[in-house]
Amino acid sequence: MSGYSTEGAVWWNFDTVEKFMIDVFKGYGMPDKDARIAAEVLITADKRGIDSHGVGRLKPIYIDRIKAGQINPITKIDIIKEGPTTAVLDANNGMGHVVSKMANDMAIDKAKKFGMGMVAVRNSNHYGIAGYYSCQAAERGCIGLTGTNARPSIAPTFGVENMLGTNPLTWAMPTDEAFPFSIDCATSVTQRGKIEVYARQKKDMPPGWVVGADGKTKTDSVAVLDELVKGTAALTPVGGIGEVGGGYKGYGWATVVEILSSALQQGAFLKGLLGFDAAGKRQPYNLGHFFIAIDIEAFTDLASFKKTTGDICRALRNSKKAPGETRIWTAGEKEWDAWLERKDKGVPFDAVEMKEFDGLKAELGLTQYHFPWEK
Amino acid sequence: MSGYSTEGAVWWNFDTVEKFMIDVFKGYGMPDKDARIAAEVLITADKRGIDSHGVGRLKPIYIDRIKAGQINPITKIDIIKEGPTTAVLDANNGMGHVVSKMANDMAIDKAKKFGMGMVAVRNSNHYGIAGYYSCQAAERGCIGLTGTNARPSIAPTFGVENMLGTNPLTWAMPTDEAFPFSIDCATSVTQRGKIEVYARQKKDMPPGWVVGADGKTKTDSVAVLDELVKGTAALTPVGGIGEVGGGYKGYGWATVVEILSSALQQGAFLKGLLGFDAAGKRQPYNLGHFFIAIDIEAFTDLASFKKTTGDICRALRNSKKAPGETRIWTAGEKEWDAWLERKDKGVPFDAVEMKEFDGLKAELGLTQYHFPWEK
Repeated sequence: MSGYSTEGAVWWNFDTVEKFMIDVFKGYGMPDKDARIAAEVLITADKRGIDSHGVGRLKPIYIDRIKAGQINPITKIDIIKEGPTTAVLDANNGMGHVVSKMANDMAIDKAKKFGMGMVAVRNSNHYGIAGYYSCQAAERGCIGLTGTNARPSIAPTFGVENMLGTNPLTWAMPTDEAFPFSIDCATSVTQRGKIEVYARQKKDMPPGWVVGADGKTKTDSVAVLDELVKGTAALTPVGGIGEVGGGYKGYGWATVVEILSSALQQGAFLKGLLGFDAAGKRQPYNLGHFFIAIDIEAFTDLASFKKTTGDICRALRNSKKAPGETRIWTAGEKEWDAWLERKDKGVPFDAVEMKEFDGLKAELGLTQYHFPWEK
Repeated sequence: MSGYSTEGAVWWNFDTVEKFMIDVFKGYGMPDKDARIAAEVLITADKRGIDSHGVGRLKPIYIDRIKAGQINPITKIDIIKEGPTTAVLDANNGMGHVVSKMANDMAIDKAKKFGMGMVAVRNSNHYGIAGYYSCQAAERGCIGLTGTNARPSIAPTFGVENMLGTNPLTWAMPTDEAFPFSIDCATSVTQRGKIEVYARQKKDMPPGWVVGADGKTKTDSVAVLDELVKGTAALTPVGGIGEVGGGYKGYGWATVVEILSSALQQGAFLKGLLGFDAAGKRQPYNLGHFFIAIDIEAFTDLASFKKTTGDICRALRNSKKAPGETRIWTAGEKEWDAWLERKDKGVPFDAVEMKEFDGLKAELGLTQYHFPWEK
């Protein structure tokens, strides 16, 4: 979702940011082809206004983990098992984006041949915005569904311990409009990336997002980021704390994603995804993902499907608004609005991101780049 | 979910209730084989403690609609399109349970052959608890996923108009325990069946479940049932009113289910599912459903999958509880508890249900049945 404050940001055009990220990834040992994939997934987040998952993650989530030996910059992919519609891939602790692009393409290819395709991945790392993959399926005339497990952070209903990842359950469908229907979101009320944005701005978060050891909500974003890592606070599932708002639903769907991401490939799950061993030493995250593609033309002609999907979206937007509200969005529309707003402006960099990019440039001697915030 | 009050209920054993329902369905023109399927789906809801979807729906949701000509008691099923992993069925306004059993079996059979299967259904009626179908997939070693559109009742985020059905997004997976992992729930915070239970007990509902035309929550269960039909109130999506609690997520997933249930089979959607025409005359509901099965053995051996799924469930249950809470459940566990509690007791009938059953018995002259509440 868009809507983060970009006040005080310095904007830099997409193409050059993407090129810089490719050079950074290559500088840390990634092959050119793989660096291009990873940079494309990251820049796509920025293009869609998903600032929590874009350039701000280059250093802390990818480069720092490559340096720490948690991510292998060379992604060796093994096909463990393959059938007409299914496959299991092992990423051998390489880059999540690289194995995920391959797995998603395989699922789509299988769907184009047999009507459906599903590929499960093991021993992987953070794969970026889930919607990158599902929207690629939509672009090729498929329904796309993907999910991933992640470092434990959601507490079960009636629990306070971080057990489940934010585990997105992400769908995309083609429409007859300029952009697909795309619901790209975590099964928690919020996710770490959004709290990071609040923390960078030193702002409190809304109540109901995080539960403390006392079973009550916490709102201090800076403290919570630390507590989430320590395990003394946890995210709430969609529906919130307890059962009355349907919290057991978000908890249930988060568990669905945990199972689909882990049990089909016999990989790690829950506390096995901490990224630390029992002695506190960094270890690979061993994440799992899954990618499902459903070929629409196996059911109906693509144009009719797109028209119905578009008709549904338009009817929803045109329905009666609550007093004081001027607009109803459909999923994927805010991301499209962000693109329209940003396409000639580029990526907004905040102070933390500028500093991180300065550091990467200096480390790798990438003096051919002149940042717009440099004198 | 279990947990409804059964205070003052009269209990009647499952087998006889099921036989009675079969005779009622046959009495209103259903073939024996079809009557058995419909009764089995209904009684399964009661066995799982899902009182909102069991015997209490026999008369108002099925028999009344057969009488009104909205449901054809003879379910003629056409296969509109079929591929190796996919199919589209037309139920010609017959019984939802009957076409859904066939569609779900087809999806599972296809999965067993090719790894995955998906069947979309059009021109159907209410298919009972979604979890009946997904759990059948789990019993056969598959991951089951199903959804259905429904009479419009959820308002979009920032809207107040009933646009989307309660649209369940229902998954089941086999485990190494006595019962599967099964999340069988609507994408709204609550659903009509639960409000009906509150209304029968003349109790207010919790705030946040329903939004009025003023954009604020409504809690009068009796009034709301009427207003939901009139369209002057609407259910909220999981995550609640507005965006801050993640309401756009429930809204997004509800739209996913609407699209999957409608666009693949080019059937009705949103306001097309009201069951009334523009002049207020009853017409068929024209519901759509979808059924997905994924064969686990296409990815890994079934025993390992079941063990991992069980391990995940056990770890969640054993995680740290909020102060004052004594238990954490996993999805499907409360339904299993309800079965253990009920298996020797049977179905609880409240006053409204007893009266409905009395009426059906009298109408059809089913004097061979003696209800436990009869003198």
